[in-house]
Amino acid sequence: MKHIVSSLVLAGTTLVPDTRAATPPPAIPPEIRRAAEALREKAFAGTRATEWVRSLVDTAGPRLTGSPGDRASIAWGMATLKALGFANVRAEKVTAPFWERGVETGEVTAPYPHKLFLTALGGSVGTPDPGLEAEVIEVASLDELGARKESDVRGKIVFFNRRMRRTADGAGYGEAVTVRSRGASRAAKLGAVGVLIRSIGTDSNRTPHTGSLRYEAGVAKIPAAALSNPDADLLERLLRGGKPLRVRFTLGCRDRGQTESANVIGEIRGRDKPEEIVLLACHRDSWDLGEGAIDDGAGCGIVIEAARLISGMTPPPRRTIRVVLFANEENGLAGGRSYSTDHEDELARHVAALEADLGSGQPIGFSWNAGPSAEPLVREIASLLEPLGAGDVRSTGAGGADIARLILAGVPLFSVRQDASRYFDWHHTSNDTFDKIEPESLDRMTAAVAAFAYVAASVPEPFEKIPVEKRVLPRW
Amino acid sequence: MKHIVSSLVLAGTTLVPDTRAATPPPAIPPEIRRAAEALREKAFAGTRATEWVRSLVDTAGPRLTGSPGDRASIAWGMATLKALGFANVRAEKVTAPFWERGVETGEVTAPYPHKLFLTALGGSVGTPDPGLEAEVIEVASLDELGARKESDVRGKIVFFNRRMRRTADGAGYGEAVTVRSRGASRAAKLGAVGVLIRSIGTDSNRTPHTGSLRYEAGVAKIPAAALSNPDADLLERLLRGGKPLRVRFTLGCRDRGQTESANVIGEIRGRDKPEEIVLLACHRDSWDLGEGAIDDGAGCGIVIEAARLISGMTPPPRRTIRVVLFANEENGLAGGRSYSTDHEDELARHVAALEADLGSGQPIGFSWNAGPSAEPLVREIASLLEPLGAGDVRSTGAGGADIARLILAGVPLFSVRQDASRYFDWHHTSNDTFDKIEPESLDRMTAAVAAFAYVAASVPEPFEKIPVEKRVLPRW
Repeated sequence: MKHIVSSLVLAGTTLVPDTRAATPPPAIPPEIRRAAEALREKAFAGTRATEWVRSLVDTAGPRLTGSPGDRASIAWGMATLKALGFANVRAEKVTAPFWERGVETGEVTAPYPHKLFLTALGGSVGTPDPGLEAEVIEVASLDELGARKESDVRGKIVFFNRRMRRTADGAGYGEAVTVRSRGASRAAKLGAVGVLIRSIGTDSNRTPHTGSLRYEAGVAKIPAAALSNPDADLLERLLRGGKPLRVRFTLGCRDRGQTESANVIGEIRGRDKPEEIVLLACHRDSWDLGEGAIDDGAGCGIVIEAARLISGMTPPPRRTIRVVLFANEENGLAGGRSYSTDHEDELARHVAALEADLGSGQPIGFSWNAGPSAEPLVREIASLLEPLGAGDVRSTGAGGADIARLILAGVPLFSVRQDASRYFDWHHTSNDTFDKIEPESLDRMTAAVAAFAYVAASVPEPFEKIPVEKRVLPRW
Repeated sequence: MKHIVSSLVLAGTTLVPDTRAATPPPAIPPEIRRAAEALREKAFAGTRATEWVRSLVDTAGPRLTGSPGDRASIAWGMATLKALGFANVRAEKVTAPFWERGVETGEVTAPYPHKLFLTALGGSVGTPDPGLEAEVIEVASLDELGARKESDVRGKIVFFNRRMRRTADGAGYGEAVTVRSRGASRAAKLGAVGVLIRSIGTDSNRTPHTGSLRYEAGVAKIPAAALSNPDADLLERLLRGGKPLRVRFTLGCRDRGQTESANVIGEIRGRDKPEEIVLLACHRDSWDLGEGAIDDGAGCGIVIEAARLISGMTPPPRRTIRVVLFANEENGLAGGRSYSTDHEDELARHVAALEADLGSGQPIGFSWNAGPSAEPLVREIASLLEPLGAGDVRSTGAGGADIARLILAGVPLFSVRQDASRYFDWHHTSNDTFDKIEPESLDRMTAAVAAFAYVAASVPEPFEKIPVEKRVLPRW
């Protein structure tokens, strides 16, 4: 036992002996570290995280803002957090955009008839009633579109045909997603009447990937949809054949204005400094096509279970662990915005925030964004996560969509990075169902998040805030 | 060269020296074997089979009997076989069942609302206009249903929840498929109002697998649909929860009586005995959900290309190679029935028949069904296929749905068995698209089929017919 303690004392310091300087004390006191290790081991051996995902998915189903599932999941969140003994369980009102999908059809009309599997991008306007039919022009990127003459594009449907790369860290998503978010307005500026994109996804299923677009102010809003990858392949082949390609599609989607939703919140109260907060986040809403199991039922299972495990700890955490199941991450980020506004007075007392929102893949690293003096503590936490596979520390990739705005108050942001190799096979599709959950990976993620949160809530000196000059919102 | 020839002469005979008995002559004469080996090597290095699949799929799309794609693929078949120089290209009329799918919806209505992804089984009757809603009762098999009391089943929807095993040879399909073909009538006999089956498929996609059912005469016809595997998982979990489970579904499918379709036929005429026929078969029709690339575009690509390669051979084959792209395999087998009737007088001169209808997986073996004296020739053919991975000879598994009836005339039946490990992920779903084609495996299959067909059409002594006592139709 003594040996273990002395090696722990050395953690985070150089192993080269230096008799002239005193060894700095560890950032994590030994008894906190021991407790965090025990917590990690317990969770690694098995948690109830998968149970919470199953319960959310089976009782609420898809949870797009404003839908019956959105409301059912607010009730589910309240009931679940109360049943698990969380304190201050509440639903904080969020006013958020309300968009509905409606009927969707697609077909190639020339040179040969084919049915197309497509789905509206979130926020798209619908097509006129009889649908929209036009010749298709293919481009690989926004830049390639920009190089086209307006006379080539006017009156056409622009087909953005860019394949997403499969990567363990999900980097391929960021590379490809701009055609989804910005393609419609870019095409409209050149007179296009509609947009089809190759799905931002790594699968070969007939399950198109939705996701939000953003219309630029002052530009005509044109309908935009994603084709499944096999359907994009078909258009690509037909275009190579050299005959004019025409497509007809109908989207029944519509903007229904604003609706009321809620961030569901519960806490494990801190013993000594309950007013100081470690925020664990996920998002409760989901796209409408699937069941929202991996996006983001998984994240909710992780953070609820991490906090539940901490509630049984000795010694109890000094600070409060606050779990927030955010509203409206997928199509508006109104939940994150409401939270940062409604809790403005409290943000200076948020010592750390972490969001789990990359499915149920296993942990592969730890990311941080805080003041530079936090680094020794961050490295000690990473060494704690090493046995879970998450010891690789990076100063990029910390945060999450719902907690992004907390950067403006300097709140230190963290992420346990996840293996997302298969995540984008199912992301934003009808295939986001419970069978895609990997229980053992979810246990590992829960172990990592719990160990991090327990340490963050227990150390005497929390992380230095993000320096003022770095308090800038990321650009999506 | 001399050495090679002498080893070829020995192929198929024992390697243990026996000076007392004369070595029997090889069943395949050396010059035929050398030519077949060259053909095999040429095809193994690359063929145009994938090109024919792409062309069929892109120009005709889905090809359910009676659909526009069915008609388009007749025209495609005629034009393609003519362009490739086949002789006697013709479309032989087939009168076949005409069934149309229509709108399909499904939902769990209790204990929690969920959308269900389901699709009508081929041949199912539709539901009443407002849909069908009832409590669900789960059984694992026809036997388990048979053990239920009528009072447990009456007025309910029976959910057949049996998982298909993934196997390289596709054996899991035969084990599971009886609930699809017979489940509806079995359930109706006990008073059920509808049937839902777990898809007969090995995937976890939201893409239900269709396929034909058969109603028993004199039993009420009730609507039957397949749930995607994730949706079947959902019902299974909800049922484990113990609360009554209710489902509502609508099927707009209907029987439209009979329609006209066609077997498309073309030949590579034999030099010496053109009246003797080696039949190479695939089916031109497909289910309506996908594009029919693996089922059975792949088979058509294989047999067309195998015959095309043989058309350039020296020496040319003695007998005629006849390629038949059969109509209506999926929902009636009318193409196979018409062929055996219309060509009755000719069947005694069919020396061999092979059908390719298991996707584009690579060859894993060779199956035969002929008279016992054919075995030495069969084993020499198998040794020819060994470098392609198809040397494993079995006397089971020969034939195919469209050529099955030829057994009644004793026509020797053959199959190049294929690796079907992934075939049933996509079989009869919307995911049956061109991207699932594996060009290299298709080349190997083409090489195997071509080598077999060339030998069958060239050897002096063809296979002994199937013995009279074995001329019995298999039971599906």
